[in-house]
Amino acid sequence: MCLPDQLTIGLLGGTGPQGRGLALRMALAGHRVLLGSRDPRRAAGIVDDLLAGRDLPIEGVANAEAAEAADVVFLVFPYAGQAEVLPGLAAAIGAKVVVDVINPLGWDTHGPYLLQVPEGSAAEQAAALLPEARVVAAFHHAAPKLLADPERQVETDVLVASDDPEAKGLVLELADQIPGCRGVDAGPLRLARHLEGFTAVIVGINRRHKIHAGLRISRLGDDKRRRLNAELRPARGPGGLKERGGSPPVDRDREEGP
Amino acid sequence: MCLPDQLTIGLLGGTGPQGRGLALRMALAGHRVLLGSRDPRRAAGIVDDLLAGRDLPIEGVANAEAAEAADVVFLVFPYAGQAEVLPGLAAAIGAKVVVDVINPLGWDTHGPYLLQVPEGSAAEQAAALLPEARVVAAFHHAAPKLLADPERQVETDVLVASDDPEAKGLVLELADQIPGCRGVDAGPLRLARHLEGFTAVIVGINRRHKIHAGLRISRLGDDKRRRLNAELRPARGPGGLKERGGSPPVDRDREEGP
Repeated sequence: MCLPDQLTIGLLGGTGPQGRGLALRMALAGHRVLLGSRDPRRAAGIVDDLLAGRDLPIEGVANAEAAEAADVVFLVFPYAGQAEVLPGLAAAIGAKVVVDVINPLGWDTHGPYLLQVPEGSAAEQAAALLPEARVVAAFHHAAPKLLADPERQVETDVLVASDDPEAKGLVLELADQIPGCRGVDAGPLRLARHLEGFTAVIVGINRRHKIHAGLRISRLGDDKRRRLNAELRPARGPGGLKERGGSPPVDRDREEGP
Repeated sequence: MCLPDQLTIGLLGGTGPQGRGLALRMALAGHRVLLGSRDPRRAAGIVDDLLAGRDLPIEGVANAEAAEAADVVFLVFPYAGQAEVLPGLAAAIGAKVVVDVINPLGWDTHGPYLLQVPEGSAAEQAAALLPEARVVAAFHHAAPKLLADPERQVETDVLVASDDPEAKGLVLELADQIPGCRGVDAGPLRLARHLEGFTAVIVGINRRHKIHAGLRISRLGDDKRRRLNAELRPARGPGGLKERGGSPPVDRDREEGP
């Protein structure tokens, strides 16, 4: 896999707050974005609102078209939609890199909780439904409200879990392109359940404190992080993904001696 | 429950790295600490090593004695020990505040993973075995290596889950007494599984990056956090727990408008 400077990103089920925010940030990072919906007219209308006159390469299309034309596919359905919709898109997705952003959460009088997913996590469910795809779990803790406002930093580390090192390396790089985000290798796909589950904790904290929280891994130095992340990427020419200012907070920049 | 300035803290199964580190930090915060083990002679030897000539109120005792004499009981057994040992200590623990610090983790060629706990989490297992106790899950992400070194800040937010608001308020306050830690209300006890599970993610990050990571909730302002935490505590006299410098990092101190 050779990563060009500009990727085509397909956001399936991208009309919700998370999809709209990621569409905006990926377009600002220089990628072409296809925001997919079952109803392409609805997708087009949402893209018009999202652009609000800005000149960014985001188009509203049908999910199948986004899946077909994309280099990298993001799954931003509500959880209930994933198992229903993915089988019909499997052929179009094929062996692409698939980023599952879905948090399978329920809500009752005690607040948010993680739904039981037979496969262990939404991301592992996607992997089961898309056996050829290179599935990555990521972006669970990026607040939609912050993603949606290009004037603000999205203050979170983006924890990235996958069994495919190259796909993981690509997604870590995409995370670094969002100002305020840092891509952090969170291990194999089987740990995706803990990324999804932790969202229930964050959503509860948001509700109690009326904030849009994210999370930071403390004591994770940036030089070492970037070096290790880069080792996951395939070798490639000078046209790598450009850094867009996803700078870490200064006081997180300490690291432990060996 | 009226919190005196000095509590007696009993650490059951406290001879491991987490128990030793918490013993040191709780003693430095001004509390009396009973470090418990099945073998009180072993506990006494470990306390001698831990004190290294320092004048701190830590004693090595049998688990039963620590459970009996403590105001607050910490469970720092290895996970496998909890179900075996707790039933014999239930009478001594009674209706006390119990802080479950246990991370039920396994390790294989793919790294750390969360063990299946029939009750959902180690903390919920403790609650099932100690039906009278006021169970709180906390301190999962405090690195033992940092806890053990009084010269260093323990750079983590301490996420605290419980169904008992007063007990939760007390433990949030204990967390704030460790320099570098911030106590954060993480919701009801049913979310303890996600605190325990997230430790698998952190342990993997530690292994890959050779660090002692913790986590911070971003955008969580300290004034609001302290105010909400204080609302969980019972009203009490002037002898509240003293602040010992658990200061937050400066750039995390922003908060969202209402």
